[in-house]
Amino acid sequence: MPDSSLKAVLDPKSIAIIGASDNPNKIGGRPLVYLSRFGYRGKVYPINPKRTETLGYKTYPALRDLPETPEVAIVAVPGDAALAAVDECADLGVKAVVLMSSGFGESDPVGGKEKERRMVERVRAKGTRIIGPNSQGLANFGTGAILSFSTMYLEAEPADGPVAVLSQSGAMAVVPYGLMRQRGIGVRHSHATGNDCDVTVSELAAAVVEDPEVKLLLLYLESIPDPENLAEVARIARERDLPVIALKSGRTAAGQAAASSHTGALANEDRVVDAFLEHHGIWRVRDTAGLVDAAELYLKGWRPKGRRLVAISNSGAVCVMSADAASMAGMPMAKLADETRAELGRILPSFATTTNPIDITAALLTNSRLFGDILPVIAKDPAADAFVIGVPVAGVGYDVDAFARDTATFAALTGKPLVVAAPQPNVMARFKAEGLPVFTTETQAVDALNQYISHLELMNRAKTHRADAPFVAKPRDRASASSTPVMLNEADSLALAQSHGLPVVAHRLCRSAEECVEALQAIGGPVAVKGCSADIAHKSELGLVRLGLNTPEEVTDAWHGMERIIRDSGKRFDGVIVAAMRKGRREMIIGAHRDPVFGPVVMVGDGGKYVEALPDLRLLLPPFSADEVAEALARLRIAPVLGGVRGEPPMDLAALSEAVAAVGRLMMDPAAKIVSLDLNPVLVGSAGEGCAIVDAVIFRESANDTMGNK
Amino acid sequence: MPDSSLKAVLDPKSIAIIGASDNPNKIGGRPLVYLSRFGYRGKVYPINPKRTETLGYKTYPALRDLPETPEVAIVAVPGDAALAAVDECADLGVKAVVLMSSGFGESDPVGGKEKERRMVERVRAKGTRIIGPNSQGLANFGTGAILSFSTMYLEAEPADGPVAVLSQSGAMAVVPYGLMRQRGIGVRHSHATGNDCDVTVSELAAAVVEDPEVKLLLLYLESIPDPENLAEVARIARERDLPVIALKSGRTAAGQAAASSHTGALANEDRVVDAFLEHHGIWRVRDTAGLVDAAELYLKGWRPKGRRLVAISNSGAVCVMSADAASMAGMPMAKLADETRAELGRILPSFATTTNPIDITAALLTNSRLFGDILPVIAKDPAADAFVIGVPVAGVGYDVDAFARDTATFAALTGKPLVVAAPQPNVMARFKAEGLPVFTTETQAVDALNQYISHLELMNRAKTHRADAPFVAKPRDRASASSTPVMLNEADSLALAQSHGLPVVAHRLCRSAEECVEALQAIGGPVAVKGCSADIAHKSELGLVRLGLNTPEEVTDAWHGMERIIRDSGKRFDGVIVAAMRKGRREMIIGAHRDPVFGPVVMVGDGGKYVEALPDLRLLLPPFSADEVAEALARLRIAPVLGGVRGEPPMDLAALSEAVAAVGRLMMDPAAKIVSLDLNPVLVGSAGEGCAIVDAVIFRESANDTMGNK
Repeated sequence: MPDSSLKAVLDPKSIAIIGASDNPNKIGGRPLVYLSRFGYRGKVYPINPKRTETLGYKTYPALRDLPETPEVAIVAVPGDAALAAVDECADLGVKAVVLMSSGFGESDPVGGKEKERRMVERVRAKGTRIIGPNSQGLANFGTGAILSFSTMYLEAEPADGPVAVLSQSGAMAVVPYGLMRQRGIGVRHSHATGNDCDVTVSELAAAVVEDPEVKLLLLYLESIPDPENLAEVARIARERDLPVIALKSGRTAAGQAAASSHTGALANEDRVVDAFLEHHGIWRVRDTAGLVDAAELYLKGWRPKGRRLVAISNSGAVCVMSADAASMAGMPMAKLADETRAELGRILPSFATTTNPIDITAALLTNSRLFGDILPVIAKDPAADAFVIGVPVAGVGYDVDAFARDTATFAALTGKPLVVAAPQPNVMARFKAEGLPVFTTETQAVDALNQYISHLELMNRAKTHRADAPFVAKPRDRASASSTPVMLNEADSLALAQSHGLPVVAHRLCRSAEECVEALQAIGGPVAVKGCSADIAHKSELGLVRLGLNTPEEVTDAWHGMERIIRDSGKRFDGVIVAAMRKGRREMIIGAHRDPVFGPVVMVGDGGKYVEALPDLRLLLPPFSADEVAEALARLRIAPVLGGVRGEPPMDLAALSEAVAAVGRLMMDPAAKIVSLDLNPVLVGSAGEGCAIVDAVIFRESANDTMGNK
Repeated sequence: MPDSSLKAVLDPKSIAIIGASDNPNKIGGRPLVYLSRFGYRGKVYPINPKRTETLGYKTYPALRDLPETPEVAIVAVPGDAALAAVDECADLGVKAVVLMSSGFGESDPVGGKEKERRMVERVRAKGTRIIGPNSQGLANFGTGAILSFSTMYLEAEPADGPVAVLSQSGAMAVVPYGLMRQRGIGVRHSHATGNDCDVTVSELAAAVVEDPEVKLLLLYLESIPDPENLAEVARIARERDLPVIALKSGRTAAGQAAASSHTGALANEDRVVDAFLEHHGIWRVRDTAGLVDAAELYLKGWRPKGRRLVAISNSGAVCVMSADAASMAGMPMAKLADETRAELGRILPSFATTTNPIDITAALLTNSRLFGDILPVIAKDPAADAFVIGVPVAGVGYDVDAFARDTATFAALTGKPLVVAAPQPNVMARFKAEGLPVFTTETQAVDALNQYISHLELMNRAKTHRADAPFVAKPRDRASASSTPVMLNEADSLALAQSHGLPVVAHRLCRSAEECVEALQAIGGPVAVKGCSADIAHKSELGLVRLGLNTPEEVTDAWHGMERIIRDSGKRFDGVIVAAMRKGRREMIIGAHRDPVFGPVVMVGDGGKYVEALPDLRLLLPPFSADEVAEALARLRIAPVLGGVRGEPPMDLAALSEAVAAVGRLMMDPAAKIVSLDLNPVLVGSAGEGCAIVDAVIFRESANDTMGNK
């Protein structure tokens, strides 16, 4: 449940503006303009010792002079005065402060951040929450509570509506707002939280998604310091079927420093963010256009059943390009029923196309009714899940009004997603006037449709998989800077994996040459023999791996050789592993590590020598099921090979998926204290043959570490 | 040199309209409207036996009644009358006919096409060229010769300008036109050629690119039946530094039917089109937006020296997103000089960012001069090749006029490419008014910049590589349906490759067990032994490959075994190949085949079992140099591995490139008569170690075939 202070800041009964200005273009003046202009019904208390009236409001010299304690205060005074004002708010019991003042962490990452930290410490004890500092402010057009100095609400006329936009950045709280308004879409919430010293953008978002009028949530994020709050936003949104679209920028920041595990090296911030957002059903877009281009589609209340597309146009070229765009988007063209085609054939001229895409041809110019005549026929065919209507050229000689009306009737009749592509502004305007989503090109239209449908699919998957699996990346699960990971030797790593249900190759740790010979006899040759040392992660380079040994002499020789190599190098000698030689059809890798922010992350990917140079991997955030692993495997580049090509049988994806799921459980087990894990290679056989972990390197927290089950 | 008839059709002295109508919305009426409205200065002769005047023009009963033979005629009468009209034009010596009538190949692919073929045969003998049938017509706003019935020129006011748009499709001749006009860009040529029964869109384009006023050519193509004409367009365009952008749709059409060679299977139409367009320096886009979004940049006359970007914004978020977009586009952020940063530091507030991207911060609101003050400082720094200016929010309180003026001054001063991102329509309009290219988002701006710069780079490469290498896919080079390819056995295939300078593994074709033993001794063991038959392409499956044989007994045994296998299966037994066992670091594949349209196509890619399931390949159209192969190899997914990772030395890319270049020459050699070729595997060693072809399957034209050097 979100903090009641956050509900108050979205819908305050009373607002004080500390540092009120009569200049409407100053940060202490503009909120007053907005509060009066956009219908705020609560009390407004400007505070300024130098004046008794500000922009029409009675003005008070100080907070303590107000007739009541305001629920919320805007602090718009600079420097130390801002700190004093925040403290005074806390002393008086103001629920939340919107701290617009800058000069904190954003200009001085050390001293400024420290100032923020101390301020939060003082104030939270008294129950006051802070939005900011350096916040452009919050705007709720549902309540008229516009605690913001953004210029944008003067530039693009507000209208209450179903969209909420949240961002730390001021610009990115209002740019999507402005683009929505250009499209005629109403925006209720447009909040810029600034430095997030106390309330984070995710925490505020959790309060916003409780607003039942919100039907689409847009987030701009430059970092996700508190994934647990964002997970909570996603959880509430899933319950409400509320789509969340996130633009996480800084995608291309250098990854984490080289890590000891493959997962550490490959699970760079960007890939983990991808996995985190996907895990929670949040759709990630690459730019601002991605936030807004498909927005209208989400607001139609459609319930698409699938992704088979029907395209209709008066241009053959647009038909071809629609089919191209659909194919690139992975949307198959629907196969129309024979009756549908026959009926279309009776209506359309003989040279028109009655297969999908449906080319009405330029005959539309001479007979504007063709369009309206065929749509009801298509509406009856259940094959279509969604439609794109392309009208590249119309105008004089065409009954564009009829096209738009007929399309709107058709859309209402089918209740299925429908997008229009019309590059001419006047044609576009007519379709828009009928409430239809219109794009300039068919590719843009199909791409928006694909985003919308794919996002709903993602939400459904997240709903299924996350039903009773709360996100657990609480701080205790994160790798802590103070911890000192300890590498287990291969035998211990394999034993730990095995004890958690992972399929480990048959092997024995031998403490003498004699034990090696016994192991050979028990396992049966040929065997692999490997030197075992908790000090050595990469054995091959040192000559500590010998393969295909068959005789007692060979394994005895290997024992002696390896003992010598390890002891000569001054490393700990833990013995020699004798293992069965398993053959698999493909070498995969399974890895895991603890992300400092997102907690446990599990990787599965194509193995071999070049896992890092030619990455082909998927990341999963536990908890996840084997089914989710199977879905992830299906998205690998090598998926066709895993599925079986060239007449080969499919590989044992069930076993591999189970193994990855077991790694997920292992990473969730606080007693296991795993820091990172590389199972490499994992040999996968044909379906039914299982998979086998041949080598493992596991790092655990050291015994005296505080992480885990305390 | 383009046909003089095509020059005439673009700038005719006189035009007859056969089937003139006084209804301005009919195909026989609208050209008359356009000719009078858009300033055509030649003679206009409407032809219609039923009237003496049409839309203000004196009208004649028949072509033969005209006072002169018109240079060009529009035929706008239906059915057989159209055929008669075309014949009459030819009889009278009309240079070119724009045949708008439909009912030909587009509605009847068999009978209609045949009608077209016969018409062309009759007419060409008399020297008349046909544009069409089913042509929407041609529009040249430079001469006012609008021989078109498109609705679009009523909808979007024409303005002569530097852009030419050509398409078979009517819609796609005018949709880019309309989008250009929405952007305020003038369009001179907008031509829709229809069914291309005679003059193709590429042939007409070759005439259009001779127009010195054309600075940008846009092509929409659904097929490229005459690559030699498109190559000629590209050649003229290269000489003129004229960029050509092509949208080839139907990208996702099913590939060619399964072919006997890997190249045949992998060089699907779409990949070959990619290679062809790249070969000629034509930029391929995926949709209509790609044709127009960057168009303005091409018209600025910039001469970019590189692709290092500087981003400037008053929003930190826009700075981050610009850097993201640049990184995704492969545009590095320029490193500003220390002096630049110091000088910026003196101007900007302390919390602004003086590294690139440059965040002016919201301080711009209180000091609109900041923007104009820093630009001259940045202009002096040579590190930047191009700029993106992001103004996500401005308006009341900002001096937007000054920003736009200052930016225009800066752009003029540097002469370097500059794009603006401004989502607010009024801000956008101010920058546009200064002649600057403006986009809604920074990503769109950077993507357009990247397309523009990458296209110029492509043009430069094409200029270098194509300097004296004409395109040779003349019909005789194409695989002909009548030819009967004959498979060479492995020994003959290897010998042919070797005789053309390709590095073939040491081997001998042996005709007896004794010869096998001699070969073993000459080559030195271990050797590979392979059964040789011109009837067998896939040896492994039949047990016809044995590896690592060392002794006379082993090779003798192999001889007898393989002879038996081949003879028992009723195939031709050509002997046994004994070959050295070469080791390489990577198995590559080199292939080639003759595309039925584009002629010889050479493939190089990652080898192994899954070449088709996990394609990682590049196609090249000969002639090409080893340097071009090296560029292609650098774009493979496995390029890092070829270059050396994990401390490995680089592989011998020089040798591999030379081998691929040799295959290119072989495919160009008419005497070699190669239909297809698979060199698989080609083992590549470390730099200096060369590469070795271990197996080869070559198909040649049969001896009695007519293809080749006749």
